[in-house]
Amino acid sequence: MITPPPPPPPPPPPPLSVSPAAERLRQLLAEEDSIPTPTLFTEMDTLQQDGDELEWKESARWVKFEEKVEEGGERWSKPHVSTLTLHSLFELRTCLQTGSILLDLEGFSLPQIVGESTSTVYTNDNSFSLPQIVGESTSTVHNTNNGYPLPQRLKNKFMKKIPRDAEASNVLIGEVDFLEKPFVAFVRLAQATTLGGLTEVPVPTRSAFLFILLGPRGKTKAYNEIGRAIATLMVDDLFSDVAYKARDRDDLIAGVDEFLDEVIVLPPGEWDPKIRIEPPKKVPSAEMRSASGPLHLHIPKHCEHQTNTNQSDTCGRFCGGLWLDIKRKAPWFCSDIYEGFHVQSISAVLFIYLGCITNAITFGGLLGDATDNYQGVMESFLGTALAGTVFCVFGGQPLIILSSTGPILIFEKLLYDFSNNDIDYMELRLWIGLHSCLQCFILVATDASYIIKYMTRFTEEGFSSLISFIFISDAIKKMVGSFKYYPINRGFKPDFITSYKCECIAPDQGESSRPIWSRKYMDWGFLSKKECVKYGGTLVGSACKYVPDLALMSFILFFGTYSMTVSLKKFKSSRYFPTTLRKLISDFSIFMSIMTFVGLDMLMGLDTPKLIVPTEVKPTRPDRGWLIMPFGKNPWWVYVASFVPALLVTILIFMDQQISAVIVNRKENKLKKGCGYHLDLLWVGVLMAVCSFMGLPWYVAATVISIAHIDSLKMESESSAPGEQPQFLGVREQRLTGILVFVLTGVSVFLAPVLQYIPMPVLYGVFLYMGVASLSGIQFWERMKLYLMPAKHQPDFSFLRHVPLRRVHLFTLVQIICLAVLWTLKSTFLAIIFPVMILGLMVVRKLMDMIFSQHDLAWLDDILPEKEKKKKEDDGDKKKSKRRPVEPESDEEVRGGGGAHTHTRTHTHTNTHTHTHTILSFITSS
Amino acid sequence: MITPPPPPPPPPPPPLSVSPAAERLRQLLAEEDSIPTPTLFTEMDTLQQDGDELEWKESARWVKFEEKVEEGGERWSKPHVSTLTLHSLFELRTCLQTGSILLDLEGFSLPQIVGESTSTVYTNDNSFSLPQIVGESTSTVHNTNNGYPLPQRLKNKFMKKIPRDAEASNVLIGEVDFLEKPFVAFVRLAQATTLGGLTEVPVPTRSAFLFILLGPRGKTKAYNEIGRAIATLMVDDLFSDVAYKARDRDDLIAGVDEFLDEVIVLPPGEWDPKIRIEPPKKVPSAEMRSASGPLHLHIPKHCEHQTNTNQSDTCGRFCGGLWLDIKRKAPWFCSDIYEGFHVQSISAVLFIYLGCITNAITFGGLLGDATDNYQGVMESFLGTALAGTVFCVFGGQPLIILSSTGPILIFEKLLYDFSNNDIDYMELRLWIGLHSCLQCFILVATDASYIIKYMTRFTEEGFSSLISFIFISDAIKKMVGSFKYYPINRGFKPDFITSYKCECIAPDQGESSRPIWSRKYMDWGFLSKKECVKYGGTLVGSACKYVPDLALMSFILFFGTYSMTVSLKKFKSSRYFPTTLRKLISDFSIFMSIMTFVGLDMLMGLDTPKLIVPTEVKPTRPDRGWLIMPFGKNPWWVYVASFVPALLVTILIFMDQQISAVIVNRKENKLKKGCGYHLDLLWVGVLMAVCSFMGLPWYVAATVISIAHIDSLKMESESSAPGEQPQFLGVREQRLTGILVFVLTGVSVFLAPVLQYIPMPVLYGVFLYMGVASLSGIQFWERMKLYLMPAKHQPDFSFLRHVPLRRVHLFTLVQIICLAVLWTLKSTFLAIIFPVMILGLMVVRKLMDMIFSQHDLAWLDDILPEKEKKKKEDDGDKKKSKRRPVEPESDEEVRGGGGAHTHTRTHTHTNTHTHTHTILSFITSS
Repeated sequence: MITPPPPPPPPPPPPLSVSPAAERLRQLLAEEDSIPTPTLFTEMDTLQQDGDELEWKESARWVKFEEKVEEGGERWSKPHVSTLTLHSLFELRTCLQTGSILLDLEGFSLPQIVGESTSTVYTNDNSFSLPQIVGESTSTVHNTNNGYPLPQRLKNKFMKKIPRDAEASNVLIGEVDFLEKPFVAFVRLAQATTLGGLTEVPVPTRSAFLFILLGPRGKTKAYNEIGRAIATLMVDDLFSDVAYKARDRDDLIAGVDEFLDEVIVLPPGEWDPKIRIEPPKKVPSAEMRSASGPLHLHIPKHCEHQTNTNQSDTCGRFCGGLWLDIKRKAPWFCSDIYEGFHVQSISAVLFIYLGCITNAITFGGLLGDATDNYQGVMESFLGTALAGTVFCVFGGQPLIILSSTGPILIFEKLLYDFSNNDIDYMELRLWIGLHSCLQCFILVATDASYIIKYMTRFTEEGFSSLISFIFISDAIKKMVGSFKYYPINRGFKPDFITSYKCECIAPDQGESSRPIWSRKYMDWGFLSKKECVKYGGTLVGSACKYVPDLALMSFILFFGTYSMTVSLKKFKSSRYFPTTLRKLISDFSIFMSIMTFVGLDMLMGLDTPKLIVPTEVKPTRPDRGWLIMPFGKNPWWVYVASFVPALLVTILIFMDQQISAVIVNRKENKLKKGCGYHLDLLWVGVLMAVCSFMGLPWYVAATVISIAHIDSLKMESESSAPGEQPQFLGVREQRLTGILVFVLTGVSVFLAPVLQYIPMPVLYGVFLYMGVASLSGIQFWERMKLYLMPAKHQPDFSFLRHVPLRRVHLFTLVQIICLAVLWTLKSTFLAIIFPVMILGLMVVRKLMDMIFSQHDLAWLDDILPEKEKKKKEDDGDKKKSKRRPVEPESDEEVRGGGGAHTHTRTHTHTNTHTHTHTILSFITSS
Repeated sequence: MITPPPPPPPPPPPPLSVSPAAERLRQLLAEEDSIPTPTLFTEMDTLQQDGDELEWKESARWVKFEEKVEEGGERWSKPHVSTLTLHSLFELRTCLQTGSILLDLEGFSLPQIVGESTSTVYTNDNSFSLPQIVGESTSTVHNTNNGYPLPQRLKNKFMKKIPRDAEASNVLIGEVDFLEKPFVAFVRLAQATTLGGLTEVPVPTRSAFLFILLGPRGKTKAYNEIGRAIATLMVDDLFSDVAYKARDRDDLIAGVDEFLDEVIVLPPGEWDPKIRIEPPKKVPSAEMRSASGPLHLHIPKHCEHQTNTNQSDTCGRFCGGLWLDIKRKAPWFCSDIYEGFHVQSISAVLFIYLGCITNAITFGGLLGDATDNYQGVMESFLGTALAGTVFCVFGGQPLIILSSTGPILIFEKLLYDFSNNDIDYMELRLWIGLHSCLQCFILVATDASYIIKYMTRFTEEGFSSLISFIFISDAIKKMVGSFKYYPINRGFKPDFITSYKCECIAPDQGESSRPIWSRKYMDWGFLSKKECVKYGGTLVGSACKYVPDLALMSFILFFGTYSMTVSLKKFKSSRYFPTTLRKLISDFSIFMSIMTFVGLDMLMGLDTPKLIVPTEVKPTRPDRGWLIMPFGKNPWWVYVASFVPALLVTILIFMDQQISAVIVNRKENKLKKGCGYHLDLLWVGVLMAVCSFMGLPWYVAATVISIAHIDSLKMESESSAPGEQPQFLGVREQRLTGILVFVLTGVSVFLAPVLQYIPMPVLYGVFLYMGVASLSGIQFWERMKLYLMPAKHQPDFSFLRHVPLRRVHLFTLVQIICLAVLWTLKSTFLAIIFPVMILGLMVVRKLMDMIFSQHDLAWLDDILPEKEKKKKEDDGDKKKSKRRPVEPESDEEVRGGGGAHTHTRTHTHTNTHTHTHTILSFITSS
């Protein structure tokens, strides 16, 4: 529709075996280019009639995606993918073929530039007015820009999204009366210049390119589409490279052809062009495109960091693994501290702290029951604080949170029962601890942590799911327990309130063993329930065994805390409030829920069970001190024989510690500072000994709380271009949050006046949340959900594209059965060897090699070490297996979303080279 | 990469003013075609090596969108938009230019067809094997198809998605050893034939087209892409038309060019081609495309049904509107009954029934208080049943649910207080009813309902929001009330249970007025609370004023019912379970929630307040009968003077009735059977008189319950092609559900034994849900939310594209202020003229014409009648205003989604004709 000046006769079609565009670009871009080209953003201005004056008005901009000025709305549209018409791209190509191309023009003002560009093309007399129109109309822009309802604040906000060294390209589109045919100019300035008032963001950004399209009236729509096309091209990574380096017109056209060859086409009957497509989660990077495309310009220098963080190092030497761990972790030590200074850390500390003290109180209480208060709540607090702090300061993986665990509790219980007769419990325990510490050192020295290589996704997810289920079931059990502890009087009729009472009746004189004097002078009716029972009275009446309101209130607090936390967590992806505020709300969701329901509880003023921490630092049992002597109370053979129970403790601790560490070091978490399995184990051993000497409980990594710790420290990219989706970057890896949590735990004794307001049901709600949250993002859990989904609704997981559904279901079923067996065993006395059952899981996994093909296992799990090697050999000739995931799918992929699997990408593009050839031969010859 | 036989020399470039492809298609498709071409679906099969044998395997299919066979997954992918490469489309074009094209081939087996097609092109000797390979390999398909893990059941399921008369097109792609250059054939069979075993759906579908592409080895990917391209083309509405009618090769190529001209292009840097794009909510229909495109083939014969259902008819004649209403509604009467037979009706009836009886009980109770039981719960039930049934059988809009309303209640209260002295209340009320009935008749006869023309979205949404807020606030107030009714003992300490009691103390002898004998022999300690008070005793004790558990239990029931209903409603869009089951769960969400919490309540066994309906049909007050006599109790002038209060009642009823009817008849509801404002009013008047005679309350349309009724009867299309989004089709317009609801209300007296298990808090939860649900989808509410959203997160409402945000906010603010004023007035004695305040809203709306431009108002509201006319004249020359919505945006658009506004579409395509021209000149000449 733009009728261009007659094009030069097309060059003779080149021989078919040569692909001119690709070849040209290869040469152009292969030139050594140490300086990377600046990032470009584009602004498109259209010439608009306002009364008698013409003025440039910004109509759209591109940083990476398109943002349009909504005509009536006077606002920027949401960033969206530019949907172009094929037509406009072809017209643009014609424009570049016939218009004036000025490369490396020296010019500092628009009229000058336009003057230059017209002189090269136009020799007839109507061109004289072009510099004026462009010049004049730009000069009015200053005024209109000021009147334009985009406050400075917004502009500055926009500037933040643009890289500091970015340069602008300006697309100027307009209709004028005095032209009979369109005037097209593509200008590259020798030096990027601030053209003043043209770009919306005025201050530091300089224009490097100008594209001018002016034409006769009546074609606005078409001109606009061409403008959008060049604007989109200019922000394309490859084309902008070409534009910066182009030597002549043909280079540019080759760039357009290259772009055309890569475009994606949507059929008109299946898509409405009016729909604005949201930016995708991920776009192929320029490197990826050029690497897979025909050019192979830059061989991507991928920073190949550890592909398998779960692999514990071993180098055969004595203490070799430990040495490597120390070497790996030491350089990070400083950053481990200062990287903790972030607002997110505050919420993480509060969250984990509450989890830790709840755990400390629970386990403390249970340990107290089990050991007749030799270890009680006080010891639990102190031990948690001591062990946690030391581990977080010196451990290999400071994101791990230490805690007492179930199996240890059971072990202590058995040990106390055993020693009750004639062996001193604390001394025996000390010796077991010392033996166990020694055994840990041996495991460290011999690089035994190598075993974790065999903990694949199957084992890891099975174990962590099980622990999560236990957390959830414990939280619910505690809640149900309060209905038993505070029974509700179901038969209560408000009208018969007069018949509900509970009276303390004095016992018959003869029966009681209490001294008579105490009974004689007592007014039994005024005794409280406890006193009545204490003095041998009998409680009589229909109200005695019921407690009103507390059970229901506990339920409301429990469920309210849980569901408010879940809702607030989700708030991050809502539309309300600015992003930072939403992120803050999401980060502090647990804290806010706790505060809300503590407030509600205070408001109601009911006597719900509260968190009670010890307020004085002294051993729970008055007859023990803070230091246990190793000798003197037991016969000598006990010191030796304790080697045997120590062995059990060591296996227990080793498995529990290492599997939790594997879960924390999961690839999905994108940890960058590496792992330290040997170092971890060393410190767990040391702490065993120290705690044994002080009579404190033993500590080992706690799976669920560690996962919660990781989750609360996750980082997402601040998106750079408007519309770009934030990417999960990794975890704030540092020691500060852990240290703070445990220091706080230590000083909780002094925080008792504050902590006593927190009702226990609220904390159970937090526990429920922790359990549920640690399930999310686990592939096993996603696969369980597949049972309930019809095939057509299932998310586009990559493993579903490659493994038949029935095999996936079978794999999941095996896992479910394993868990069911473990759950059953856990409920018996076998609970003590619970961590050892991980070995059982590993055996089952090994057996699965017989049922499932290595291909299926590669997608659903990892390949076991020796199999992997074997498989690689097998696959030497099979092409298909190249799709096998070398790394298991990342977290995001498991969660659906884009769902494209990285490893198929290479395959797709193998033929692109020839494609280019054909499209060009089509264009040039047909 | 396919090196085709050298193409014939390109035709001389045509003169630029002619657009050959478009011209050609115009001629081709303009031929009278009374028979519409059948729907096509495509199956793509690829030739695959299995050991020594070659076999065809299905690799993808297209009904409208693409479904791929996931290689490893052995499953169909989700339907998605086919993303093609531009390259493959050009290659396809070359293929059609050079391959053999056989149109209207008579053939019934594959080998025969292939034989034919090869004979026309290949004369050299290697062609002989083609029929064999195609024939042989197809014969093996039968076996492989059987082994293919796609059970018959699934095939039948798929068949349901394909129209009965659909025909198949088969795309066969393969690599063979014996070819040196590709063999391409496009075959149209003279008669669609069942080729047996080729299509996945074997039974009734016949192939009409075959596209065969066989070539030398090594280009699988490229062949596949070409296959996908032709497959996508074949399911394109326009191209399939062309394919059926094509006379020669050039017609087909013109079809491809036409397709190319319309394709949408995504830039490679902004989109990852691996992402499968979900089918959009709406795609432009073929008519739309061709109408807006260059061809203008079929002028769309849109069934222009009433664009403005809110316009009440008036034709100037006496009773003219009523006559038109009757004429409009009468033909639907039969379908009004039989269209009610649907499973959805059951849930609607249950839902609305529960709403109605709760309302009847609430208002009955209040009326009883206000009128000293002259009208009580019994009258309320009977009146609701009578008025509702009559209205649903004979009314103009049977979806409207009648109910008592607040203003009427206040009026009755005032009237009773007034008449308390010397005028008989029931007789006075009868006369007011008669006068009011007469006045209604006059309003009907004079077509006064014409006023609703001035009720724009502003008025309508303001009113319905207010009513919704009142619903929500009432529900919450009732809930809070139960905390007052069942006070919680906050200071309760479980240990001091012995000190909590409530005893009935006998009064001092001298004080009581009761006969002494009753007091003397009474055991005061055994009296219940009520009895104690009755006999003049005093309740003493700390437990007397507290009721345990009931308040908290009520809260759990209330909030549980509400949130479970909300969650279950959302379940429709979850991934779990098959679509029908999810729809059922969503439809019955309220019923299921009620059942769940009734069950929970029974399980807990607490004495929560229950729904109690009267069990005997007799007037609440024993001294009145079922018929009120008009004469005898009041002086004669009362009969005349009651004309004045009747006037107030009439206005009240008129406004309340008509605004509710306007809301029900909203365009968004897509009602097809038209409205009947005059007929509605007639029956409301008649029922006034009847109810007055029987001493029953007066009834008028209830906004919120009517909206709930509509919502529970909404229909969605069963999607036809896999992946197509279900569309909102309209509402199941019928009289059956309404009739059933009110008949059930009538017989509720006998349902008392069942209804008594329903706790009131559960029903308040339902009320809360009704209020919240009726807010959703209201534009006013969406605009309120905009205040909290940063501009970049705001949904893509079309009004935001065309009206500056600050104007939108201002408009919303005016509405909020109006509502605040109304809310305040409602809390005063002015509540009685509440419906009249709608007039106030209408005045405010009129004043807004002075603040807002007609353009802005057109987007945010409707134009008032005379303005509209004026505006039309004004806009004669302004092009821009063509974008003004002739219809306000539909419900869906308000809710975001696609967000494209229909009315801009025309504008976009105005230049397409010239586009085609240019693209073709590019292709043919460049």
